[in-house]
Amino acid sequence: MKPVKVGLLGLGTVGTGVVRIVEGHQEDLRSQVGSPIVIEKVLVQNKDKARSISIDASKLTEDVADIIYNPDIDVVVEVMGGIEHTKQHILEALSRGKHVVTANKDLMALHGQEILAKAAENRCDVFYEASVAGGIPIIRTLIEGFSSDRITKIMGIVNGTTNYILTKMSQEGASYLDVLKEAQQLGYAEADPTSDVEGLDAARKMTILARLGFRAEFALEDVSVQGISGVSKEDILYAKRLGYEVKLLGIAERSDDQIAVSVQPTMVKQSHPIASVNGVFNAVYVHGEAVGETMFYGAGAGELPTATSIVADLVAVVKNLKIGVNGLQDVASYKETKLKTDEQISSKYFLLLHVDDKAGVLARITQVFAEYEVSLESVLQQPNPHNPEAEIIVITHDANKAAMNKVLQAFDSLEVIRKVKSIYRVEG
Amino acid sequence: MKPVKVGLLGLGTVGTGVVRIVEGHQEDLRSQVGSPIVIEKVLVQNKDKARSISIDASKLTEDVADIIYNPDIDVVVEVMGGIEHTKQHILEALSRGKHVVTANKDLMALHGQEILAKAAENRCDVFYEASVAGGIPIIRTLIEGFSSDRITKIMGIVNGTTNYILTKMSQEGASYLDVLKEAQQLGYAEADPTSDVEGLDAARKMTILARLGFRAEFALEDVSVQGISGVSKEDILYAKRLGYEVKLLGIAERSDDQIAVSVQPTMVKQSHPIASVNGVFNAVYVHGEAVGETMFYGAGAGELPTATSIVADLVAVVKNLKIGVNGLQDVASYKETKLKTDEQISSKYFLLLHVDDKAGVLARITQVFAEYEVSLESVLQQPNPHNPEAEIIVITHDANKAAMNKVLQAFDSLEVIRKVKSIYRVEG
Repeated sequence: MKPVKVGLLGLGTVGTGVVRIVEGHQEDLRSQVGSPIVIEKVLVQNKDKARSISIDASKLTEDVADIIYNPDIDVVVEVMGGIEHTKQHILEALSRGKHVVTANKDLMALHGQEILAKAAENRCDVFYEASVAGGIPIIRTLIEGFSSDRITKIMGIVNGTTNYILTKMSQEGASYLDVLKEAQQLGYAEADPTSDVEGLDAARKMTILARLGFRAEFALEDVSVQGISGVSKEDILYAKRLGYEVKLLGIAERSDDQIAVSVQPTMVKQSHPIASVNGVFNAVYVHGEAVGETMFYGAGAGELPTATSIVADLVAVVKNLKIGVNGLQDVASYKETKLKTDEQISSKYFLLLHVDDKAGVLARITQVFAEYEVSLESVLQQPNPHNPEAEIIVITHDANKAAMNKVLQAFDSLEVIRKVKSIYRVEG
Repeated sequence: MKPVKVGLLGLGTVGTGVVRIVEGHQEDLRSQVGSPIVIEKVLVQNKDKARSISIDASKLTEDVADIIYNPDIDVVVEVMGGIEHTKQHILEALSRGKHVVTANKDLMALHGQEILAKAAENRCDVFYEASVAGGIPIIRTLIEGFSSDRITKIMGIVNGTTNYILTKMSQEGASYLDVLKEAQQLGYAEADPTSDVEGLDAARKMTILARLGFRAEFALEDVSVQGISGVSKEDILYAKRLGYEVKLLGIAERSDDQIAVSVQPTMVKQSHPIASVNGVFNAVYVHGEAVGETMFYGAGAGELPTATSIVADLVAVVKNLKIGVNGLQDVASYKETKLKTDEQISSKYFLLLHVDDKAGVLARITQVFAEYEVSLESVLQQPNPHNPEAEIIVITHDANKAAMNKVLQAFDSLEVIRKVKSIYRVEG
């Protein structure tokens, strides 16, 4: 079989990793797919920039047309990022019969359905394993490994930056801002960390996982998102004292064909397997009706882990080329989504209340919970040594979100409550 | 597309699960593969036996010929177990163009290469995801997810019975025999537990994983195997005190294209992700040159988790049928194996020695280690309150197996050592 020619869009960290793996593992790859895989052209911003890998200068181009309109190129690997322009490039490539491998979660979360439709129309493959949880083959696992099961819940630690920050806060008792600054210095957080710390990056990845896991259409704007910038070191201390860790969890749930997807800091019981996923590692926990509990753990980002997933996708494209079945494997029809209402979204909650330190306060508060039929798992009242007010910690039994919202509204007008200091979803 | 017809060999626990999932998820399956999947015939030992599922009596047969020679049947699902007879049935089915899904680790470990060759010859699929770690799609992950990487190490907790026993011993300080008896009463261990507790079951599974992970031929008899019947509650206590758990680990390692596979009770550092895999759960830890550390966790056995993997394989067969590519996907050539010599197998070791309680003993012992160039990470000497002898605990740095064997030989003739009480490989 003649060599398979790849056009690479982007030569940043991940692009460099792709070149390293394709060139370094050439013999292993050829023994698997029966033909050489050649990086034919690489789109860069500046051809003259110094690089950490040696690459033939004639392969570099600053013009995307040299790749997407190049008749020699079989597969386009997109690792340049960006949304609107990149989408146009990918659609152009597909309409010229080129297969696409992308690591672009933003693009797939926002325009995945359009891109996949264009691919099917042109009998092309589009694979995107690297877009979620870099080194963990979770997309394959959802599509193939659990094809026979009905997945009811996916919980993911899918953002390494926030998991690094929360792990450091938990292990060192440090504050959010101090750890963020350190993470920026180490290169684990961007100069503008908004997309990570406010949960947007995680929301995009959860959109992709929810679509695949539930085989349902699902839009990014339907994810309810809350980031970690409000997590205090005191919250983490309380959590640990009660046997929990605070994690930024993406949670996608389905019951009776209704779906809810959210991203929020969550208290996770320390005995739950996802509670001990630390540092920049990612993990995706999947619960299926038949298979029960499973979890997949690994590096979420980084040059080589992400490139591993991209090149595995490339191998899949080439295997399909060999047997002539590109663009034919996904025959699943996707269901239309019904979103869960707040009445249908149920979980436990942790609340930390600052209240007047006087008789009858607890009775007033528990009465409010009872009124909205939120039952309580545990209640702890203690004086606060630094304040004239007392602290009350409540962990509820499963309660629906609508009822909890009503409880919080009622607390607003309850003068014995000075402040609802913290509220967290609880899992495990 | 016309219905795909399945012949099921065996209707025990897992077979029952397959019927439940195929029938219960009929609509979901049809939306994925585009045609109904029908269980056409089921081989049972006794047609008149009472069963926990209702199944049309006309589908049951006591004659395997009704399935393997039945021209209506497209796919044979084998969940009856057994080796020689079962192999003949499967080879017959393949030579008649029937695809095969099997959960039979014994068969695949011993005769996998012959069966896969027969399948290729007849352009048939043989899938066996359920043969290792029931509900965890680890076989797909090794073949596809890490196709681009060079896997250097696979460590697996792949036997639920032994992990249940070791977890109970660790959590309750109970003895091996007491927990084994309890596991037998609960149905977690067989009346004759040899295959599980002596590591044979794990060895078969590791043979399959090593072949796939290293893309190399590898024979069951080349696995070095030690079971858990010699693990004492004292060993587990010492391990915990030093920050380790004792797990029955299958370890497959490769470097410079040389391979070693072993199964043995191993002390695993508590901070290692595999150390907290408890009870009947399974996990497979995979280290790749590029991807780094990953781990896959889930149920290792049970009716529905195992059936999930079998039906996922069935879905893969039917998707291949639809696009006409059965038997074409595995184009990898397998390397011949070179086994590591004892000089090339390296790990840390834990030793517990009972020694004479007198001056100069420690010097004599450390001299032996030095002589064979085994360097020590930590040494702890303490009096034993129950004995006139003292105890010495040693943890070595990485040492090769040949050197350690020489150390143990030298200890044999060292009269100050009364007994080498325990020796464990150490990981993490």
